[in-house]
Amino acid sequence: MRLALLAHEKFPGRAKTAVGILRYGTDEVIAVLDRNNAGDRVRDHVPDVQDAPIVSGMAEVEASIDALVVGIAPIGGGFDESWRADVRTAMERGADVIAGLHYFLEDDEEFAALAAEHDVDIWDVRKPPEDLTVAEGVADTVDAEVITTVGTDCSTGKMTASMELVEAARAAGHDAAMVPTGQTGIMIEGWGIPVDRVISDFAAGAVEQLVLEKGDEQDYLVVEGQGSLTHPAYSGVTLSILHGSMPEKLVLCHVAGREAIHGYESFEMPTLSEYVDLYESVAAPVAETDVVAGMLHTGAMESDAAAREAVEEYSQSLGLPATDPVRFGAESVLEAVL
Amino acid sequence: MRLALLAHEKFPGRAKTAVGILRYGTDEVIAVLDRNNAGDRVRDHVPDVQDAPIVSGMAEVEASIDALVVGIAPIGGGFDESWRADVRTAMERGADVIAGLHYFLEDDEEFAALAAEHDVDIWDVRKPPEDLTVAEGVADTVDAEVITTVGTDCSTGKMTASMELVEAARAAGHDAAMVPTGQTGIMIEGWGIPVDRVISDFAAGAVEQLVLEKGDEQDYLVVEGQGSLTHPAYSGVTLSILHGSMPEKLVLCHVAGREAIHGYESFEMPTLSEYVDLYESVAAPVAETDVVAGMLHTGAMESDAAAREAVEEYSQSLGLPATDPVRFGAESVLEAVL
Repeated sequence: MRLALLAHEKFPGRAKTAVGILRYGTDEVIAVLDRNNAGDRVRDHVPDVQDAPIVSGMAEVEASIDALVVGIAPIGGGFDESWRADVRTAMERGADVIAGLHYFLEDDEEFAALAAEHDVDIWDVRKPPEDLTVAEGVADTVDAEVITTVGTDCSTGKMTASMELVEAARAAGHDAAMVPTGQTGIMIEGWGIPVDRVISDFAAGAVEQLVLEKGDEQDYLVVEGQGSLTHPAYSGVTLSILHGSMPEKLVLCHVAGREAIHGYESFEMPTLSEYVDLYESVAAPVAETDVVAGMLHTGAMESDAAAREAVEEYSQSLGLPATDPVRFGAESVLEAVL
Repeated sequence: MRLALLAHEKFPGRAKTAVGILRYGTDEVIAVLDRNNAGDRVRDHVPDVQDAPIVSGMAEVEASIDALVVGIAPIGGGFDESWRADVRTAMERGADVIAGLHYFLEDDEEFAALAAEHDVDIWDVRKPPEDLTVAEGVADTVDAEVITTVGTDCSTGKMTASMELVEAARAAGHDAAMVPTGQTGIMIEGWGIPVDRVISDFAAGAVEQLVLEKGDEQDYLVVEGQGSLTHPAYSGVTLSILHGSMPEKLVLCHVAGREAIHGYESFEMPTLSEYVDLYESVAAPVAETDVVAGMLHTGAMESDAAAREAVEEYSQSLGLPATDPVRFGAESVLEAVL
């Protein structure tokens, strides 16, 4: 597939989906749409992923594409009307549209009409299946060992950590699979359930269903966590994944230097050891589990030496092995995690 | 309004909604439908609420009714086909239907057609409003002091405790309101949001919206909790309410003698002091709060003396004032809670 990625005004720092697809997707990215960075290239901002030109809109994408991916997901998951012209142009040119918003494009009158007229598909990745139900508390019955990534906040690299752990486990000869619980992971892996969009009574049940679906085929399942147990808005999603997946081990993801909840700056983050205690003690009544390793997102640090030092400090604070899986790979924590 | 309450095979022990309406509703209950207890009266099973005959189905309800209420909500919230004839009969006789199931009766083809044909309404109480969004972490900005009821499990009397606390606060001369988060409370109070039905990303936001809606008109708001932080299926709902309401105080509800999660018997309940620690420590990063009182559901105990002893023991375990608010009133804990 040949893709264009819409990431207006947010690339790369706040375009998790776009960056995730550039890093882990197997499709060819023809262009990134970001009117603030038009004229640059992806490698000017993110050196270690697939490169592509950055343009101001679909009008400047000359090559044909198979799909336009909405590669940003603002707080609240709404559709920004400034994106409409690009989505319209893509559909008129025969491209499918893939989006992970709470606002479903297939329910948008204009887009639904355009899809019919131009015979293209709309894939609203965040639309959960309709047959979900409550958890039974049986995720721990699968053959695989379940590892769940958890975080000190949103956007701390839980999806990335999960992907890198699976890749490292496979490289070491194990059968391992990631369990995607968010739109980017679902787009890349081709399966999963957007847990934050599931009705809250069934959120843990959705995760349990995913674990049961793949759990007997694998040695290891790495469940992608969401949000944080201390997040004023999303903690319920976090806990549903924690209890629904009934993990044997946890991996704690953190962003170097972050001290307050992103977008909720009046909420200070607890200390790392408080996070560890909190995750383990809340998990325990449903599944006894330990934080066994840390993942640190050092993307904002320019030098590898400073990043290495930050990882070392993070590891010491946790008293556990740690890495930045994008910068230094996940191999060094694999023994602790598997 | 004249009501019939459908509670087949579940009255009274597993018919929370029916019993709640009998206890706190202001409408007249003409009959309770329970094919297992037909011929009995409500007072044979629950002595301290509005009395009514128990019958096997709508065919035996001779008086006219304004509405049939589905007064049970099974795990998963599905519609049991054995109830269909009663719902059909009620609508054919011109009664509205009120239900709090995850299965929406208004989306049922037969019921939708009957509603149109007989000009009656279907009120699916569990259908949340469509304009919800994420929490902003501002519930603590209201003038009212916010108290949230939490539990050691589902069905521990959180709605009842909330109702009784509000009633006692009003009797003591304060302005107080309950914030209903579940179908029964919504039916009785006429407002609220069924948080367990809200998509999980917006669950805390829904609670925040409720608190903001009434918070400046009252001295005290008592937010009805749901589920339990240790529940394998519903913990995400619980935490969304805890963080979304940002309470200053918590009241812990428990059922005398219960030691395992209801319906999930392989999950042992932690000790009471572990519950207190868990609720306080998980709340703290979003809202510093303390458990200040306990509520014990002693409904299964026949003698008041035994119930009194159980309450005393519960109070000592918590090191806090406690009561069974149905049996002994909520006045004795009011000072600690307000």
